[in-house]
Amino acid sequence: MLLNRFFLVLVFFAYNLLLSQTPAGYELWMDYKKVEMPSLSSQYSNIANEVTVLGEGETIQVIKNELLLALPQMLGSQFEIKKEVGEKSSMIIATWAQLPQNIKKQIELDDESFGNEGFTLKSLNTKKAQKVIVTANSEIGLLYGTFRLLALMQQHSDLTNINLVDTPKIDIRMLNHWDNLDRTVERGYAGFSLWNWQKLPEFIDQRYVDYARANASVGINAVSLTNVNANALILTPMYLEKVKALAETFRPYGIKVYLTARFSAPIEIGGLESADPLNQKVIEWWQAKADEIYDLIPDFGGFLVKANSEGQPGPQNYDRNHVDGANMMAKALAPHKGNVIWRAFVYSEHDADDRAKQAYSEFVPYDGQFLPNVLVQVKNGAIDFQPREPFHPMFGAMSKTPIMMEFQITKEYLGFSTHLVYLPKLYEEVLEADTYQEGKGSTVAKVLDGSLQGQQITGMAGVANIGNDLNWTGHPFGQADWYGFGRQAWNPYLDSEKIADEWLRMTFSNDEKFVEPIKEMMVTSREAVVNYMNPLGLHHIFDTGHHYGPGPWVSELSRPEWNPVYYHQADENGIGFDRTPSGSNATAQYAQPVAEMFNDPKTCPEEYLLWFHHLPWDYQLKNGETLWNGLARKYQEGVNQVAKMQKTWNQIKPYVSAEQHKEVNMLLTIQHKEAKWWRDACLLYFQTFSKQELPVGVEKPEHDLEYYKSLKFPFAPGIRPRW
Amino acid sequence: MLLNRFFLVLVFFAYNLLLSQTPAGYELWMDYKKVEMPSLSSQYSNIANEVTVLGEGETIQVIKNELLLALPQMLGSQFEIKKEVGEKSSMIIATWAQLPQNIKKQIELDDESFGNEGFTLKSLNTKKAQKVIVTANSEIGLLYGTFRLLALMQQHSDLTNINLVDTPKIDIRMLNHWDNLDRTVERGYAGFSLWNWQKLPEFIDQRYVDYARANASVGINAVSLTNVNANALILTPMYLEKVKALAETFRPYGIKVYLTARFSAPIEIGGLESADPLNQKVIEWWQAKADEIYDLIPDFGGFLVKANSEGQPGPQNYDRNHVDGANMMAKALAPHKGNVIWRAFVYSEHDADDRAKQAYSEFVPYDGQFLPNVLVQVKNGAIDFQPREPFHPMFGAMSKTPIMMEFQITKEYLGFSTHLVYLPKLYEEVLEADTYQEGKGSTVAKVLDGSLQGQQITGMAGVANIGNDLNWTGHPFGQADWYGFGRQAWNPYLDSEKIADEWLRMTFSNDEKFVEPIKEMMVTSREAVVNYMNPLGLHHIFDTGHHYGPGPWVSELSRPEWNPVYYHQADENGIGFDRTPSGSNATAQYAQPVAEMFNDPKTCPEEYLLWFHHLPWDYQLKNGETLWNGLARKYQEGVNQVAKMQKTWNQIKPYVSAEQHKEVNMLLTIQHKEAKWWRDACLLYFQTFSKQELPVGVEKPEHDLEYYKSLKFPFAPGIRPRW
Repeated sequence: MLLNRFFLVLVFFAYNLLLSQTPAGYELWMDYKKVEMPSLSSQYSNIANEVTVLGEGETIQVIKNELLLALPQMLGSQFEIKKEVGEKSSMIIATWAQLPQNIKKQIELDDESFGNEGFTLKSLNTKKAQKVIVTANSEIGLLYGTFRLLALMQQHSDLTNINLVDTPKIDIRMLNHWDNLDRTVERGYAGFSLWNWQKLPEFIDQRYVDYARANASVGINAVSLTNVNANALILTPMYLEKVKALAETFRPYGIKVYLTARFSAPIEIGGLESADPLNQKVIEWWQAKADEIYDLIPDFGGFLVKANSEGQPGPQNYDRNHVDGANMMAKALAPHKGNVIWRAFVYSEHDADDRAKQAYSEFVPYDGQFLPNVLVQVKNGAIDFQPREPFHPMFGAMSKTPIMMEFQITKEYLGFSTHLVYLPKLYEEVLEADTYQEGKGSTVAKVLDGSLQGQQITGMAGVANIGNDLNWTGHPFGQADWYGFGRQAWNPYLDSEKIADEWLRMTFSNDEKFVEPIKEMMVTSREAVVNYMNPLGLHHIFDTGHHYGPGPWVSELSRPEWNPVYYHQADENGIGFDRTPSGSNATAQYAQPVAEMFNDPKTCPEEYLLWFHHLPWDYQLKNGETLWNGLARKYQEGVNQVAKMQKTWNQIKPYVSAEQHKEVNMLLTIQHKEAKWWRDACLLYFQTFSKQELPVGVEKPEHDLEYYKSLKFPFAPGIRPRW
Repeated sequence: MLLNRFFLVLVFFAYNLLLSQTPAGYELWMDYKKVEMPSLSSQYSNIANEVTVLGEGETIQVIKNELLLALPQMLGSQFEIKKEVGEKSSMIIATWAQLPQNIKKQIELDDESFGNEGFTLKSLNTKKAQKVIVTANSEIGLLYGTFRLLALMQQHSDLTNINLVDTPKIDIRMLNHWDNLDRTVERGYAGFSLWNWQKLPEFIDQRYVDYARANASVGINAVSLTNVNANALILTPMYLEKVKALAETFRPYGIKVYLTARFSAPIEIGGLESADPLNQKVIEWWQAKADEIYDLIPDFGGFLVKANSEGQPGPQNYDRNHVDGANMMAKALAPHKGNVIWRAFVYSEHDADDRAKQAYSEFVPYDGQFLPNVLVQVKNGAIDFQPREPFHPMFGAMSKTPIMMEFQITKEYLGFSTHLVYLPKLYEEVLEADTYQEGKGSTVAKVLDGSLQGQQITGMAGVANIGNDLNWTGHPFGQADWYGFGRQAWNPYLDSEKIADEWLRMTFSNDEKFVEPIKEMMVTSREAVVNYMNPLGLHHIFDTGHHYGPGPWVSELSRPEWNPVYYHQADENGIGFDRTPSGSNATAQYAQPVAEMFNDPKTCPEEYLLWFHHLPWDYQLKNGETLWNGLARKYQEGVNQVAKMQKTWNQIKPYVSAEQHKEVNMLLTIQHKEAKWWRDACLLYFQTFSKQELPVGVEKPEHDLEYYKSLKFPFAPGIRPRW
């Protein structure tokens, strides 16, 4: 016994030592720290006393590997895994079909309870011993159940009377990588693409495996490997062999691979003269291409397509429409059970109408015309991943079409990977938004999971924030966004604060003195970035191209809707974009109760005020302040919130490693500096219109407006490729 | 005692477990594995029983950190470091000035023995105890000594009677990073640039520190951060603040920072109309820029310049010469003790002469005209980092000019980071080459270290193979090239086989059953790549631009000397480039005995045969074979050698982790595939001229020539930037 305790202390000691040599963060939320609390450690050790895993498949092997990695680290002793259920089996992991009859009976469920991907975790306590059963209908369900069990142990949950059934509410839980074939990543701020195309297919980087583990641990089951601004070469045989190697690596983890399909590929790599979706040769080319792909990758997910958007080719180049394009591809994929995910992020250089209206105008009339294996992927808001946007009016507006969510996990407009902004809070706000499309309670979450309008296929995508940085996401807290996105795609009704709690415990520490203040810091961080970048409904006032830092003055770009001045409309009379009936009337795209609420500045939530209204500088806000003073104070509040985050982080120093602490500290220093940059640049610029002093409590800018305008960042990361 | 042994076993066990979660290789040759052999472990534990480190500086702190990281891992127990020498001090690390007098006496040396950067390791044994002293004149010397002591322990060397004095033979031991400001790396095959310019100066990545540790551990004391195809923005205040942050991070490790200076910077960022080196405004601009830099970075190393080469601007744009350009910059740097490193890699698009001759022709006439703080940096061969080149004729030909070596560590022409090719073997071949410039024995090494011609400043640069891949160099064995380059820059007379031995023991295992066969594999790997790519003196027959794979047929590039056909000159009569007096007479640039040897195909070493001679296909080689048959067999031999490397690697499986084994295995699979690709493509192409069958023993090609010609790799890594 003495030896045993000594053993545990020593393993822990060695563990800490080693981490000091390798930069923290590679392990993500799966570093399986030693469980120190004796009561818990002994409970878990009892459960893990004799582990049995039934089955032989690749996914079963993955389950065993994970257990063999996790349990010794958490519990400090070695394990064998048995292949048969015996008297002493204390942890049994087996599909429902393989589970011994007597155990099935005790579980008091049947196979319909957990569907194809769900699972149950159930404790069966007898006088003699405690058992935990993980069962599911599929091996993937077992893998999800195993990861959940390990997560609960990492979170120091009591497993004595566990009785959990969990099934995913959304079918396609997907990461969209905007990764180019040269390994640059559009809007990527965590290094470069994980996919080392040169060394594939022979060289399988250990990161591919760990990436798949991380995804499976939160239930992500689909990935699109390539940028939506697509290169047709990915569909050539040389690259498909490489894609196949990735698909095979991901398959045991339940992950299907999708590719972005460039609409003009039949011309670029097929030698055809047209890509017209109604042209027979084009149709046949895509059919043959689909056959070729499925020959290599039998469970290939399908195509993700950005067409007729921001210069990408599409059916409109041939006077066809989105339905023609999407259905042509859908027909090619249908025999193989593949899907087309067609993006609704379109706005036309020829359409002078409010950009916020265009996707709705273009797509809603097609409702009911898409084939069943087409999903329309819609960004959470009608502009473009701003710090805050009202929910996209398309949600709930196409009752006969599967609408898939596109969130952005990478922080294009939220401070790149240098700002701590907890995104599940943003996602939650969108998911909880009530569209009123089928009456009160028609939340976006219900649109997405099909429960509102009965869609047969559902999906949620997140644009990945993952790169080849050692810690995957650049900012250590960026890992929480990946984690949280996966959790919310699994269950869009989850509380973002609960998710933060889980992630903090798994990643850093279960100490309440750490978890509570840092959880608070995370959930308020999103409001902070809104305040110091785009308060009161301002949007898209970022500097050109790279979207790094403020550029509210930018006005000379060739397309009007690329210019910040188009979005804030500031002039001597006031500021804001009038989207009410007196303006662009974009509000008419929402269900009537929502439109009415937005139309009146008195009922419009103040966080969307300038999104929908152009208001005078002395407009009176709800707190009695003028708009100018309120705007200025919001900017200041954002800066103050970051200062408070710095203070909070300094207080939790004892609970994380010196290196982790220093790393986040340095990043918060940048965030604070840039928050001030945003405040000063925006207020100086808007002041040229308001012609009013800064209110008391708002700090004076460090530089003059010309200084902020002069800043140039030609090598800011994540810039769009030029081909 | 039982507890103690138990402890050691357990730490080792935990250690192995953890490595399985983080991909191997981040730790480089400094992972400080547990010393298992009891006799050694006890010897080292005695030496480390009471460690004293005198001093307070930043470098002293670095020494302490390294000891606290290394000793517990190697010896399995914790250490305190004392600040004063006491009776029991068993390891004493102190500068000569701080060392107690009684110990100085016992050492039997004086401070002149180790110069500014050298050190001594000396054991002082009494009846009662064994001590090891590390002393030097500078803290940096102590750091080098500490790293050497730890290296010897990692190599399981007996320290009982150690008595080692070691001083670097070369002053500037430098890495050249060809890193662009967008983090792409020209000729980089290990991911992307380590330098995260966006997050600098605030965010100091732990990798910067570990990079500095690795460099210091082998004595590298200078780094140029940016691509020689330079961008002037690096010299603007915003970037200089970032450079300063890196310089401060590297300073405690004895590393000076250099930057590449774009010759036209006065125009691009200075607002001048000219960059004429004799223009007073230009002169003043560079002086002010130097002052500005040294104000931020007092120990800034200087400028590395590529001028009038491959499109880069330079003094010739203003009808000035290299001396004008280099000396103008040298004057700006001299007051701050900075250096100009001026590259001799020039060849003119207007000069139809043999490219191999141009650098010599252009530079040798300037011997004696450069200021004392100018070094001329010369590639090892006269073309461009080929698998094998005869030494550059400039070595020894400019007796009044410091000539600095430029080796390439990144494998632009040696299979990128996918081929296992041990480069110190190549470097050794060059360093040992006899220039005869001051008579027999005038080796390149003696030119470089100044001992041949008395230069006051000496240097050796290596173009780094380092990127942000988890294991730094892409290929695990690429780490040996970084390690070996550093060791050879410290001492260009070191045996490359000995270096491989050191590196293998530190990186993988001290087991002779591992070290011997793998060392053999490493030292023969360089000949293998020569055989399967460029045997018998062939060179520059790589595919266009990216240099990935064979392209001997390429003939349509705009400049003749960019085309492989220019270099191999194959026709129906034979193959090879006549550089004798009957041809380009490049041999005349060598000292007479060397020229004579090269001029006669009978005395010319066969490895350089086609470099210097155009010979008929039925020319008889030394072994009696025809040139065609010999060439074909060399290609086959290269393939066979890779197959043998695969076999060897399979045999050592028990001595490395499963992950390490698999990783190298996958890479060898690629190398074998690509070796066959080279063999087949080249032989099929040359066969169109020789019109002869492949000899017995040479395998038939898998595809036809058209297939190999059709392969295109637009996204091969490391392509030159386009700005």
